[in-house]
Amino acid sequence: MLSEFDLIARYFTRPIRQGGPVALSVGDDCALLAPAPGMQLAISSDMLVEGRHFFPGAEPRSLGHKCLAVNLSDLAAMGARPVAFTLALSLPAAEPDWLAAFSDGMLSLADQHQCELIGGDTTKGPLNICITVFGEVPPDQALRRDAAQPGDDIWISGTVGDARLALAGYRNELALPPEALAVAAPRMHAPTPRVELGLALRGIARAAIDISDGLAGDLGHILKRSGVGATLFVDDLPAGPALARREHDLRRRFTLAGGDDYELCFTAAPERRDEVLAAASRSATSVTRVGRIDKVPGLRLVDAEGAPLALQAASFDHFASP
Amino acid sequence: MLSEFDLIARYFTRPIRQGGPVALSVGDDCALLAPAPGMQLAISSDMLVEGRHFFPGAEPRSLGHKCLAVNLSDLAAMGARPVAFTLALSLPAAEPDWLAAFSDGMLSLADQHQCELIGGDTTKGPLNICITVFGEVPPDQALRRDAAQPGDDIWISGTVGDARLALAGYRNELALPPEALAVAAPRMHAPTPRVELGLALRGIARAAIDISDGLAGDLGHILKRSGVGATLFVDDLPAGPALARREHDLRRRFTLAGGDDYELCFTAAPERRDEVLAAASRSATSVTRVGRIDKVPGLRLVDAEGAPLALQAASFDHFASP
Repeated sequence: MLSEFDLIARYFTRPIRQGGPVALSVGDDCALLAPAPGMQLAISSDMLVEGRHFFPGAEPRSLGHKCLAVNLSDLAAMGARPVAFTLALSLPAAEPDWLAAFSDGMLSLADQHQCELIGGDTTKGPLNICITVFGEVPPDQALRRDAAQPGDDIWISGTVGDARLALAGYRNELALPPEALAVAAPRMHAPTPRVELGLALRGIARAAIDISDGLAGDLGHILKRSGVGATLFVDDLPAGPALARREHDLRRRFTLAGGDDYELCFTAAPERRDEVLAAASRSATSVTRVGRIDKVPGLRLVDAEGAPLALQAASFDHFASP
Repeated sequence: MLSEFDLIARYFTRPIRQGGPVALSVGDDCALLAPAPGMQLAISSDMLVEGRHFFPGAEPRSLGHKCLAVNLSDLAAMGARPVAFTLALSLPAAEPDWLAAFSDGMLSLADQHQCELIGGDTTKGPLNICITVFGEVPPDQALRRDAAQPGDDIWISGTVGDARLALAGYRNELALPPEALAVAAPRMHAPTPRVELGLALRGIARAAIDISDGLAGDLGHILKRSGVGATLFVDDLPAGPALARREHDLRRRFTLAGGDDYELCFTAAPERRDEVLAAASRSATSVTRVGRIDKVPGLRLVDAEGAPLALQAASFDHFASP
C-alpha cells in the first residue's frame, strides 16, 4: 500500500515553472504564490462527490480532467487567467493505476492552461475531489454576476444540452442510440472550460456566469444579483449536435435546463456586438445571441415568433432534489 | 429541506469588511482577493472526513472550530497572517441546527483572526469538509520546512500529547478517568492555532512545521527537506496537563508520536534564544527547547542523561494504517 507521502510524491509533485508566480509548491505547510503586481486573485472551490457528480467507477482520466475543468470554467466566467490550483482528495484506497490515470487527465489539462498544482491534501475516505483554483484578473475587469444592465444582449458560448442528453441515455430516461451517445458523452465527461473566451471578453462583456446547473437557473443568478429580468429566445438556443437531432420539446428542455454544459452565459451592450464576435473569433469559440436583459424582473421564455412559452426550467440544486 | 442556495445564504454569507483585501465574496463564480502590495500569498488545503478525522456524530460547533483551526495552524507554521478562506462542504442532509452550530464554531474562530469566508461549495454526500486558507507573508520571511541548519535549536510551542490521550480514552486503549478526559478532550476537539507565535517568529526562526501527525514524524519532514538530522531530548518534551500525570513510557510515546497537537515545531540559531523567548512572550505562547539539529542525517532520541532511546515513533499516515 502506498503511503500518503509516497502518493503525493509520485503522482502530484512536479517541478515548478521558474519565473512564474509560484514561489513554493507541494511539500511545505503552505504553498507560496507571488501575485503579479496590481492583479486581483480570482478564487473558486468545487467539490465533486462520487454518485452525485459522477458515476461510481467513472473512468479516472476523464474524471481528473473534468474536476479541474469545472474549476477552470469558474475562472473563465470571471475573465481570469488560470495560475494555480490545490487538490484535496479523499480516496477509498490508493490504487496506482487509478491515480496515474486520474493525475494524467488532470495535469494534462493543467498544462494546457499553465495552471500549476501547488498543494493539497490526501486522505482515506469516500471518493471526494475538492479543487480550489486561482486566477489573475486586472481590477475592474472581472466579469461579475451583478453587472448586467437592461438592454444588454444575452449570449452563450458553444452549444448546450448534449451533456444532459448523455445523462438521460445513461439513466434510461429515453432511448439513445449508441451513435448519439458517442457524440454526446464527451460533453458530459470531458467539458472544455472557455478560458480563452473569458479572457477575450474582458472589457467587452458586462456580466458572466458559467452554465453548470442549466442555462435558465444560472442566468437567474445574473438576473437576481443585477436586479434585472430577461427574455430568452428559446428556439435560438444552440443545441449540441446530438440533441439537435431530437424532438423539439426535448431540445427546449435540455438546452434550457440541462446541466454540466460548462459554457459561458454573458451579457454585453448591443453596440458591442461586433467586438463580442471578434472576441469569439480570436478565442476560436462560437457564440450565439439568445436573449435580452429587461428592466422588469423575471425570466420570460419566448418562441421563434416571440410568443411566450410556459416551460418549467428549474435549475439543478444539490439539496432540493430527492 | 433547505436548498443549496438558501443554505449558503443563511449560514455562510456575511458582509465583507470594507477596506480589507476581499474585493468580492460569496455569490459569484469566483471570489476576488486584492493581495497587499509586495506580499506573498500562503495557501493551504485540508480535507476532514467523518470517521477518519473526527467521530461520526461529532459535536458541530467544535467541529466547525477544528476544521478551520487545522488550516490556520498551517498558516501559523509559515509565519503567515490569515486573510480569507473557502469552505467546500459535503453533507448527508441540510439540518438547520447542525449548520447553525457548525458555522458558528467556524466563524467565531475566523473572526478572532479577521479571516473572511469568501466562497466555496455545498453538496449532498458523505460528510466531508474541505477548507482552503489564504494568508499573507512578506517575501523571504516565510518559515519553510527546508531552512533548518546544523546547530539550530529545536523548539516546540505549548504542550503535546493530550489530544492523543483523549483519543486513547475514547477508544478504550487505556482507562482514563472522567476528570482526565475533561482536561485532555478540548485539546482534541478545539485546538488553538499558534498564529500569533508564527507571526512573532518571522525573521527569528529558520524552519517551522505544525505538529499534526506527531512530533517525531513532522520534525522528520523538516529534517528531510533541510537535508539534516536531529537529536531530540525526549524527557524535555512538554506533556499536556492530563498526560503529565501518566506513566513515563506513555508520556514519551504520546508526546513523540501523538497527533492532533497543532503546536508549532521550529528551529532557530542558538544565539537567538532570547529573541525566541521574547517572541513567545509577545504572543502569550509558551515555548520549550527540545532538541538540536545535527549535520548527521536521522533522528536520535535521547533521555534526560543524553543516553540513546530506542523508541518507535512512526507518524500517522492516512494510507499506511490498516
